[in-house]
Amino acid sequence: MTLDDLVGRPGAWLAAATGPQVVVSSRIRLARNLAGLAFPGWAGPEECVRIQDSLWTVLGKARILQPSFRVDLAATSPVDRDFLRERHLISNELAQKTQGSSLVMREDERLSVMVNEEDHLRLQAMSPGFHLGELWTAIDELDSTLEGSLSYAFSGRLGYLTACPTNVGTGLRASVMAHLPGLRLINEIEPVVKGLVKIGLAVRGLQGEGTEAFGNMFQISNQTTLGESEQVIIERLEQIVNEVETHEKNARARLMEQRESRVRDFVGRAFGVLSNACVLASNESLELLSALRLGVELGRVKGMEVGDVNRLVVETQPGHLQKAVGRGLSPDERDEARAVAVRKAIRRASIQ
Amino acid sequence: MTLDDLVGRPGAWLAAATGPQVVVSSRIRLARNLAGLAFPGWAGPEECVRIQDSLWTVLGKARILQPSFRVDLAATSPVDRDFLRERHLISNELAQKTQGSSLVMREDERLSVMVNEEDHLRLQAMSPGFHLGELWTAIDELDSTLEGSLSYAFSGRLGYLTACPTNVGTGLRASVMAHLPGLRLINEIEPVVKGLVKIGLAVRGLQGEGTEAFGNMFQISNQTTLGESEQVIIERLEQIVNEVETHEKNARARLMEQRESRVRDFVGRAFGVLSNACVLASNESLELLSALRLGVELGRVKGMEVGDVNRLVVETQPGHLQKAVGRGLSPDERDEARAVAVRKAIRRASIQ
Repeated sequence: MTLDDLVGRPGAWLAAATGPQVVVSSRIRLARNLAGLAFPGWAGPEECVRIQDSLWTVLGKARILQPSFRVDLAATSPVDRDFLRERHLISNELAQKTQGSSLVMREDERLSVMVNEEDHLRLQAMSPGFHLGELWTAIDELDSTLEGSLSYAFSGRLGYLTACPTNVGTGLRASVMAHLPGLRLINEIEPVVKGLVKIGLAVRGLQGEGTEAFGNMFQISNQTTLGESEQVIIERLEQIVNEVETHEKNARARLMEQRESRVRDFVGRAFGVLSNACVLASNESLELLSALRLGVELGRVKGMEVGDVNRLVVETQPGHLQKAVGRGLSPDERDEARAVAVRKAIRRASIQ
Repeated sequence: MTLDDLVGRPGAWLAAATGPQVVVSSRIRLARNLAGLAFPGWAGPEECVRIQDSLWTVLGKARILQPSFRVDLAATSPVDRDFLRERHLISNELAQKTQGSSLVMREDERLSVMVNEEDHLRLQAMSPGFHLGELWTAIDELDSTLEGSLSYAFSGRLGYLTACPTNVGTGLRASVMAHLPGLRLINEIEPVVKGLVKIGLAVRGLQGEGTEAFGNMFQISNQTTLGESEQVIIERLEQIVNEVETHEKNARARLMEQRESRVRDFVGRAFGVLSNACVLASNESLELLSALRLGVELGRVKGMEVGDVNRLVVETQPGHLQKAVGRGLSPDERDEARAVAVRKAIRRASIQ
């Protein structure tokens, strides 16, 4: 397998899906470090390479990661890194690293490990839909396997030790990506987001930390990693996200009852522009694809599945567009390539 | 003939046309008053009715106005008046009048007379395209005919006397409606408009005085009515409009050469929104129809003629929408009816 083999297929976190889904994808990651060794931020390049080599050996033996595929960051181009970041396989931070840092992933992308990001190990499980429980089972198995061969930096009082104090304890971050166009259209998104922040959750955009929620995509995750068990953290997040999902569904029902023509107009315009634009900027595209997705979920747009829209969300990002043509593109060229990709994907769809 | 007979057909000023036309329509009007009688603003209601009766008799005999059709403003509903205003058959001012004011028009709408607007008589000739010379011939014939039976208020020194001093002299206002999307897209519309104003022309929007140029439609007319012959006024306007037309054509050519994808995008988006919107506000609709019109003229939009777009411009106005359904509509209902009318008209068109 090579990186190019990923180009033609949907990313795991937004893979093909059918039927309405407020929760588009779920993700869990665990931060782990090796006892007695400098954390990546302190280790020199040579030490990082040595640590990476030893970790590759252990990861290569973990059955749950097989068949696995390895990407050495030192061997990637800037476009490769954008591409991996857009698939949520590597973080913004890992995308800036080179020698001594790498990604080891199961070929299906659903289970992966970032080596020498901020921590020695960042285990990550992700899937489309709302499946935090299953992801926990998988990542916990990978973690236990690794713990059998590695000596983790661990404190009996604090738990797992990590480079950033906000991760100390469980080292766990569970998150879901929720698509909330109904709450946005009904002007209730702000109080909902504020409420989530108030009870200690983090709410971010499509690309995680520091990004805006374009396309009505909200990443909701736990902030607290200390003093609670993994199960408690995950179950509470699940419970709250269930409530958000109910709010969103109610908002959509109210919209369809009280302002149907407004919703039809919102979806219709997006469909019309996506079908006919020749230049599409990235953020505008996300907004329009959000409306298209709502249209598919409400049965207004036929001939297209939610998964097709998800796929477009991933594949119209800069790195994906450039990987697809196999060369770098200027921002203007990307906007044209994005419009072409969208028009092609939407061609067989129709609006009711 | 009744007012309702006009509903199903295109207005004269924007009637069916084929091929690109920067100048969409032309119009000439003459202000005339009767000697020895109070102007409409000073005459009481009874005097206005008496004057109107005598004018109806004379107008009824003018051959060039036959077959003619008469609309007594007192017998019209607010919707009727909007409808007539939108067809440019009556002015904003006449639309506010009732008893003693009327419209006498040739059934083809191309020649008409407003009775007791600001002046006793406002003769008006209009046609699609750029035909000021022919309009002058027609309106001059009507004027001469009427002058044979009526005694006009006339000063040997000043010329024709009118209610507003800005019309004294020839009483003539010649105007063209120019569609200038190229100059707008290339950001040169402002200097062009400023230049026109500087040389003494008036530049207004689609609905004349006090209206904005929505949909890139600019009404260009003479300001001066005194001290020059009708021919000089008309020829100068023709000459300047010819220059504007050249500027617009050059702008379009430059756009297609240098920024073709921008133009394709502009037209495509408008086509997409017009084909799929369920709610269309009036001004937005004019802007989108302007882009559609450009698309038809550039050959990007097939299955539709420029005249079809012109017709939509007229028929999606509030009065027309309401006349078409035969009842009053709320603003929200109008925006929905407008979207329905546009979708229906554009259904058989396609984009290249």
